[in-house]
Amino acid sequence: MNILIVHAHPEPLSFTTSLKTTAQQTFKKLGHQVEISDLYAMQFNPVASKEDFLELNQPDYFNYALEQRNATKQQLLATDIQAEIDKVKRADLIILNFPLYWTSVPAILKGWIDRVFVSGLFYGGKRFYNHGGMAGKKAMLCLTLGGRTHMFGENSIHGPIEHYLSPIQRGTLAYTGFEVLPPFIAYHVPYISQEARETILEDYVTYLTHLDQLEPLKFPKLEEFDEKLYPL
Amino acid sequence: MNILIVHAHPEPLSFTTSLKTTAQQTFKKLGHQVEISDLYAMQFNPVASKEDFLELNQPDYFNYALEQRNATKQQLLATDIQAEIDKVKRADLIILNFPLYWTSVPAILKGWIDRVFVSGLFYGGKRFYNHGGMAGKKAMLCLTLGGRTHMFGENSIHGPIEHYLSPIQRGTLAYTGFEVLPPFIAYHVPYISQEARETILEDYVTYLTHLDQLEPLKFPKLEEFDEKLYPL
Repeated sequence: MNILIVHAHPEPLSFTTSLKTTAQQTFKKLGHQVEISDLYAMQFNPVASKEDFLELNQPDYFNYALEQRNATKQQLLATDIQAEIDKVKRADLIILNFPLYWTSVPAILKGWIDRVFVSGLFYGGKRFYNHGGMAGKKAMLCLTLGGRTHMFGENSIHGPIEHYLSPIQRGTLAYTGFEVLPPFIAYHVPYISQEARETILEDYVTYLTHLDQLEPLKFPKLEEFDEKLYPL
Repeated sequence: MNILIVHAHPEPLSFTTSLKTTAQQTFKKLGHQVEISDLYAMQFNPVASKEDFLELNQPDYFNYALEQRNATKQQLLATDIQAEIDKVKRADLIILNFPLYWTSVPAILKGWIDRVFVSGLFYGGKRFYNHGGMAGKKAMLCLTLGGRTHMFGENSIHGPIEHYLSPIQRGTLAYTGFEVLPPFIAYHVPYISQEARETILEDYVTYLTHLDQLEPLKFPKLEEFDEKLYPL
């Protein structure tokens, strides 16, 4: 397999970075190819703007998705975006590796999605969910957070973690056709012992070694809806 | 009232920008004070990093939340962050005004939250939800999106819009103590007529004129949970 890990933590000594390195080493041992996009190290620009296109199709009224569609067709995407798209194209599996910031991805990773998941290639027209542009590829989240497991769930103080992850797992990855594997979540990270951290890293190795045994998350299929996207 | 509108669209002629301008004019007519943070016009930097602090408390291991807590106490926050914090402090109501990007906020707005909602002021220890640092203030989303209303909801193709908005409405605004008003959502914007757009703007004026009649969204209260945050 070709695997792309998109990593978004500013501290090389962080536990989130250890998870990235653990994945990298585990996959190499298993004989896979690994590419890393270390967004902080790359100083990746997360702001979607006119600068993302070598030429604008409609310079007097800037519509980001329309410019993406045109630039994808005409090969007019900024080089940093095109480089990331090429990595995604090469990958059979992408892992987004990040600390949960405000129950979501850090802005630098949100901007990687905003700029790289271009209209016309990742989605467009009726090409979404199981017909999305990335159909055939897998994706997975690996995230760290401060809360404890009992704080998340239907009657828990913060409610289900799945709701917070839905913009990324459903609205982004499943929408663009990725088969989404269950997330690997490290809870309570800032407050646990070195020993507990090592146990999590060992669990992650096991998790990654048996990815093929994981049941992918369930999302809608276009065939369950009519032409106007009403449920059948 | 003092009102802060945080606006995140790169195109000044966009419908999202018209919603911002409509709110600004409506509030002024009603006798309120309005401040605007136009993130694209300000070229706001959304990337949380070491540069956010005039001095680091722990330069050899960068922990963003801990540095926020220290810098808030010692007045060591970067000036662009401090300026936004001061605007939030002055505001009785904040409105986040944005186009839905990947069922979430654009990266430039996510980074405004990551950098401005500092630990120690917005939250910290047992200061969250109804005891959050922003208790007494109101907040509201105003967003535009491409989908139609029937595509969102329990059995609809994309599921409930509330799930996608939960990182911002629950995990961010309610968590930090804001009373969250129901969002104003403009659906199907790129595909509708000029007349339909004008109707939405008129509806928005009515909405903003009667904010006091809106029932705030319901979120947990700390009193419903024990010391360890298990439900009572």
